[in-house]
Amino acid sequence: MFQFADRFEGVEGSEIRKIFALLSDPEMISFAGGNPSPKLFPAQQLSEISSVLIAENPEWVLQYGGTKGVPALIELLSEINGDVMKKSDEIIITTGSSQGIELTARTFLNENDRIIVEAPSFLGALQTFKLNKAHMHEIPLKADGIDVELFKDKINRHKPKFFYTIPNFQNPSGITTSAEKRRWIYELCAEKHIIILEDDPYGDLRYDGEPIDSYKKYDDRGIVISLKSFSKTISPGIRVGYAIANKRIIEKFNILKQGQDVHTSNLSQGLVYEYIKRGLLKKHIKEICKAYGEQRDAMLYAIRDYFPNEVACTYPAGGLFLWVTLPEYMDAKELFTRCVEHKVAFVVGSPFYAHGGHKNTLRLNFSMPSIDQINKGVEIMGRQIKEYKK
Amino acid sequence: MFQFADRFEGVEGSEIRKIFALLSDPEMISFAGGNPSPKLFPAQQLSEISSVLIAENPEWVLQYGGTKGVPALIELLSEINGDVMKKSDEIIITTGSSQGIELTARTFLNENDRIIVEAPSFLGALQTFKLNKAHMHEIPLKADGIDVELFKDKINRHKPKFFYTIPNFQNPSGITTSAEKRRWIYELCAEKHIIILEDDPYGDLRYDGEPIDSYKKYDDRGIVISLKSFSKTISPGIRVGYAIANKRIIEKFNILKQGQDVHTSNLSQGLVYEYIKRGLLKKHIKEICKAYGEQRDAMLYAIRDYFPNEVACTYPAGGLFLWVTLPEYMDAKELFTRCVEHKVAFVVGSPFYAHGGHKNTLRLNFSMPSIDQINKGVEIMGRQIKEYKK
Repeated sequence: MFQFADRFEGVEGSEIRKIFALLSDPEMISFAGGNPSPKLFPAQQLSEISSVLIAENPEWVLQYGGTKGVPALIELLSEINGDVMKKSDEIIITTGSSQGIELTARTFLNENDRIIVEAPSFLGALQTFKLNKAHMHEIPLKADGIDVELFKDKINRHKPKFFYTIPNFQNPSGITTSAEKRRWIYELCAEKHIIILEDDPYGDLRYDGEPIDSYKKYDDRGIVISLKSFSKTISPGIRVGYAIANKRIIEKFNILKQGQDVHTSNLSQGLVYEYIKRGLLKKHIKEICKAYGEQRDAMLYAIRDYFPNEVACTYPAGGLFLWVTLPEYMDAKELFTRCVEHKVAFVVGSPFYAHGGHKNTLRLNFSMPSIDQINKGVEIMGRQIKEYKK
Repeated sequence: MFQFADRFEGVEGSEIRKIFALLSDPEMISFAGGNPSPKLFPAQQLSEISSVLIAENPEWVLQYGGTKGVPALIELLSEINGDVMKKSDEIIITTGSSQGIELTARTFLNENDRIIVEAPSFLGALQTFKLNKAHMHEIPLKADGIDVELFKDKINRHKPKFFYTIPNFQNPSGITTSAEKRRWIYELCAEKHIIILEDDPYGDLRYDGEPIDSYKKYDDRGIVISLKSFSKTISPGIRVGYAIANKRIIEKFNILKQGQDVHTSNLSQGLVYEYIKRGLLKKHIKEICKAYGEQRDAMLYAIRDYFPNEVACTYPAGGLFLWVTLPEYMDAKELFTRCVEHKVAFVVGSPFYAHGGHKNTLRLNFSMPSIDQINKGVEIMGRQIKEYKK
């Protein structure tokens, strides 16, 4: 009956959202989500800030604002990012960092343009690229980032518009790209005029080791678009992220964002501004990192104790996820069905690949479950894996 | 240096936003904006609601939510719209109603598809359609809506995907489409399988006469997408609107919105929910209508008193704008330059036409200026028009 646009061909909506119904079972131990822990939300502080903000500043909080964002917040974020921003860079506030992915796709992609993505990669981004009719070329991730030789080969053969990467504690794999690889990838992309879309929602959630310089730090050529988010550090529900990029790119983002939502909620922007300005964010990140670090450790220990040896998993130095590779003959979907019967859920790995496959992989989240749930759930999973083997 | 996508060809960003710099002059009387009056924002009530909401419900206000919106708000809006919603209709919450325009364009338009727009029409929508590479066919507005004979002719010749209309107190013209024309247009579109995108951000702001049934009310064929907004009745800064459409269309909106912003700020949605639930909205709309109605009257009287007879203007029964047509030989841009020198600003009409032209038209806003400013500003404009004539 309806003549929808061609872009929907082969797009079916988020796989994760489809299993949400299962997760409403209160007895289910879920390693499936990607949410921050609600126990850690700074509710009292945000409640007080919002009440003061609206009462004292209705003339900008409740009124239309500029598309790029609330000037005070832009100024504050420019200061905070002083070490990576170049003279020709600018910031635009986005409605969550997902919007930055969409803006980049719409700014650079004509139909059938080629891009390079990590394999596996973030589901939401893959869907956005599909809806923009991009041809995605996948580069497998190794323990320290993508396979660089293959990357060079694909770049030479396909002349992609951009490379989409989550350099820190990647979703879904938990992998961090090493400093050496970042440098090498940057130089190659700069030489070949390829944009790097650096999506970094997890960067602040580091539980061990030292932070690694972002791509944006090297970026004297203006080819890096850096996306940041407050969803994992303050609150995802208020939808605030931002993009740093060359001002000519930000100008295009600005034009596209006018049509998407005119601007991000001023109230949400005001909450983020005040939360940072009052010095609360740094302290809060420390607290989150402590809790999530312990949950990650619990999951890694439990996997060591309960999973058979031929099951591999990544070691994430931060973020919310780790990635499990079952023996080749196993199907994560079958394991999922068995585990759900025993009240444990996770997400199968296949949808995280632009072209599917990899049926023996799965993603585990450790930010939402308690340490007790982690121990119990991983034990159940381990038992099901062993059952499956028989 | 950057290879941007083709969609930006000929797109230059909002004309209105370009004159914002001028408007920062505190002595300027501005009829240029399209903002609701900040004096009427329900700041104290929203301040109190937000503080309670965050403190008592952080588990959903601060957490990720569903893409379609907060369930309680969807339920409430479904009730409120019970008279127009059909069984197969659903609601999705949007980040302002502009997002609904973008979602419609992305859901239906392949490159070079044809659509029909009113002439003049909303700038933001025209830009969104351009960025989606639509071919726009314009239908001139008469005092009671579009020229229906021309509409029929264009539909038969161009087989458009949809017709974009603002039926109540249109931006920029202030014109309302009559009940008869709505019925006639609906029947034709239903017969020809053409979607009607009914954008209705101003419908609640009626200062005289009786409300006219929305297109959605007749819609037994499922061809109408109805967009509503709380930007003009509660606050634009919090960015909440919604779309009502057949569930198959809403499903596509849902997929596209996942990539655009995942969901609209839960805090903003919660504010709207509580504000309506507490019975505050109806009372507040009455108050706004009283104030804006007086400002509209003041502007109409001032125009009658100060503009020469050969200047025509529309009579808006609601909304925020009226539309002025100068004698053919006059250029509104030239008048703008002269008026700005005397500290009065407005928006020239040409950018409100998909293909430009109509240089003797301009838009006046009456929601932002005080009655004193309206009298003084219209008098100055009248003097400048008479000067121009000489």
